[in-house]
Amino acid sequence: MLAEIITIGDEILIGQIVDTNSAWMAKQLNLIGVSVKQITSVSDDEQHILEALRLAETRADLILITGGLGPTKDDITKKTLAKYFNMGFRNDAAALEMVRQIFEKYKRPLLDINIQQADVPDGCEVIVNKNGTAPCMWFEQNNTIFISMPGVPYEMMYLMDDEILPRITSSFKLPFIVHKTILTANIGESFLAKEIEEIEDSLPAHIKLAYLPKLGQVRLRLSAKGDNEAELHQEVEVYAKQIISKVNKFVVTDEDIPLEKAILDLMKSKGLTLSTAESCTGGYIAHLITQHPGSSAVYWGGAVAYAYELKESILGVKESTLNTFGAVSEQTVTEMAEGAIEHFKTDYAIAVSGIAGPDGGTEEKPVGTVWIAISSKHKTVAKVFNFSNKRIQNIERSAASALAMLLNVLKETV
Amino acid sequence: MLAEIITIGDEILIGQIVDTNSAWMAKQLNLIGVSVKQITSVSDDEQHILEALRLAETRADLILITGGLGPTKDDITKKTLAKYFNMGFRNDAAALEMVRQIFEKYKRPLLDINIQQADVPDGCEVIVNKNGTAPCMWFEQNNTIFISMPGVPYEMMYLMDDEILPRITSSFKLPFIVHKTILTANIGESFLAKEIEEIEDSLPAHIKLAYLPKLGQVRLRLSAKGDNEAELHQEVEVYAKQIISKVNKFVVTDEDIPLEKAILDLMKSKGLTLSTAESCTGGYIAHLITQHPGSSAVYWGGAVAYAYELKESILGVKESTLNTFGAVSEQTVTEMAEGAIEHFKTDYAIAVSGIAGPDGGTEEKPVGTVWIAISSKHKTVAKVFNFSNKRIQNIERSAASALAMLLNVLKETV
Repeated sequence: MLAEIITIGDEILIGQIVDTNSAWMAKQLNLIGVSVKQITSVSDDEQHILEALRLAETRADLILITGGLGPTKDDITKKTLAKYFNMGFRNDAAALEMVRQIFEKYKRPLLDINIQQADVPDGCEVIVNKNGTAPCMWFEQNNTIFISMPGVPYEMMYLMDDEILPRITSSFKLPFIVHKTILTANIGESFLAKEIEEIEDSLPAHIKLAYLPKLGQVRLRLSAKGDNEAELHQEVEVYAKQIISKVNKFVVTDEDIPLEKAILDLMKSKGLTLSTAESCTGGYIAHLITQHPGSSAVYWGGAVAYAYELKESILGVKESTLNTFGAVSEQTVTEMAEGAIEHFKTDYAIAVSGIAGPDGGTEEKPVGTVWIAISSKHKTVAKVFNFSNKRIQNIERSAASALAMLLNVLKETV
Repeated sequence: MLAEIITIGDEILIGQIVDTNSAWMAKQLNLIGVSVKQITSVSDDEQHILEALRLAETRADLILITGGLGPTKDDITKKTLAKYFNMGFRNDAAALEMVRQIFEKYKRPLLDINIQQADVPDGCEVIVNKNGTAPCMWFEQNNTIFISMPGVPYEMMYLMDDEILPRITSSFKLPFIVHKTILTANIGESFLAKEIEEIEDSLPAHIKLAYLPKLGQVRLRLSAKGDNEAELHQEVEVYAKQIISKVNKFVVTDEDIPLEKAILDLMKSKGLTLSTAESCTGGYIAHLITQHPGSSAVYWGGAVAYAYELKESILGVKESTLNTFGAVSEQTVTEMAEGAIEHFKTDYAIAVSGIAGPDGGTEEKPVGTVWIAISSKHKTVAKVFNFSNKRIQNIERSAASALAMLLNVLKETV
């Protein structure tokens, strides 16, 4: 079964928002064996939407449409769908009831434009949206299903999880798609490719291998498609094992999880605790860690010490160290990491101090100079990096490098 | 001038990565007066790429293509472009020299597949990529420009900023597109629409108004298109002023910046300082603040206090408060905020303590219960929120609500 995703809204095409919906939907569809053929973002323009629907109908069995369902004048998806399917409008009782309940909950008066949110093309089936005022609409035409959803991420996610995905799995016999991901660090894409060339060449036609590089890590993804799920799992496991044994020292994990989650899992299994002492990464490492459920079992917390005063008061960095060597130095980052171990009483600590930019660089320490230290109770290792002149990149690359360093220390010591 | 963006790569269609490139490219193109008509994501499949190129050529004057240029076998963009334009291959001397330099810098041996990265379709112009081994390629056919770039974000960004955008602006006479954004908080989309209905109805055809709701905020965007830039700026300013005076008490800023940046700007102009004390948001608020250049003038730092021990040791929360009322309580969050003021010596502090989930909820305090406090030297306000059962959403909504609360306190006191 082939699906396409169409997102409607000028805000994506002028770059004001990043389309995170499509990746999430694609992931869920793949999990139930539906392949996504194309993702298309079009403007709030009738002719353009009609053309996108027409082309998608020639390629796909299932078309998921998000956006353009708000109550305001710039939202024209509903009108355009009615035109595409040549339908009139009805005010849907169940959709109206949901709008009423939402307005009652927030004790707000119901306006005419809110009542109109329950107007739908008369040939569609309404799926009630419990988290918002725009109903979800299901159309069928020439064996293709069209589903229109609001673009607000959590409304779309609830509708997909609770309504749409279950309906699709129960209505269709779908092939299985099995993915297996291996996360590697500290090896470049080309070298990895050369190392595993023979394994790659031996893959059967229904199994594909992809390389996904990001911030010093390369994710290898094996994807197998077929009718027998158990067999597919076995097959990808065989190839995954071959790859892992070939490049073992670069393998972080064979689960499809980010580096920090792999570290959390490893530390949790050993009963180890972690804290952070961040300057230029400004809480980003803490955020990466704490976005994962269960992180509190390992991560106790930390300091975001932007000002000198906080480096001293929370982490116990000596004033003389800051004055002699500067905040971005081996000495300061070492005292930050060791201070975190001492004050936060964890087994390991990460410390980062650098110049994220765009200001603050000097000839000796240009923007992008970042010191990272990893401490355990017995030992501290510190290393300097020279990243780019872009602030957000420096923050992200510092975090990725700090986590990779922590993993190396853990591999050596536990 | 109309542009389209085509991203090539299975990783987007299986939802393994979010396509952030397209939004960034669209934003840059809009700034120079190029409208993006469509963004299309297709798989690493020859027929599909060829069809996407053909359709885009019928609609656009400029087609930006990213992805599929890696050295590995799953990357087929270059071969497919050669087929589309009916070209052979040449090994490009400038591209090869860049590959050599990069491998020299990292002291890695040059492999055959790396040398092949300098192979390009023989009718294209090569734009050297200083940050990676895949060259950028510029094609022209039937008055349409096709530009193929690597999908690695920072390589693409450098090529766009330093090479492609300057070439486009100097080669074409482009219309101007002027955007003006007004950020509002604490008012729903429909109510906002009703408040400014008359102004919206009075807009001329070349000025559009869009509503962009997100996390309790609504961004209003006026977009004007025409040949006289100064006139367009004047026009949107007139309508923006009308809107701002109509809904003044909900307006955060009339710049296209996020809430935390508006707060930083306001606090900086008044010489005020800020610290944070985060539990369930785990450093996310600190990260939102510190991603902005110049944040160190206002933000001194803070604590990520996940464990009870750190709430006590860094923030001075009393053990008896934690034991009597729990970590998620008005009393604890108040002591966290006041502790931050006292220990970090800032003028204002944000504190957040809640149950982000999925575990840790109780009947009395279900997942999504979040206490937020804002302290100044004179006063603390605390408020409880009941968000959803999804961890990431709870973190994001807690941060957005904390920032909105801080803004309200600042508006009342400074």
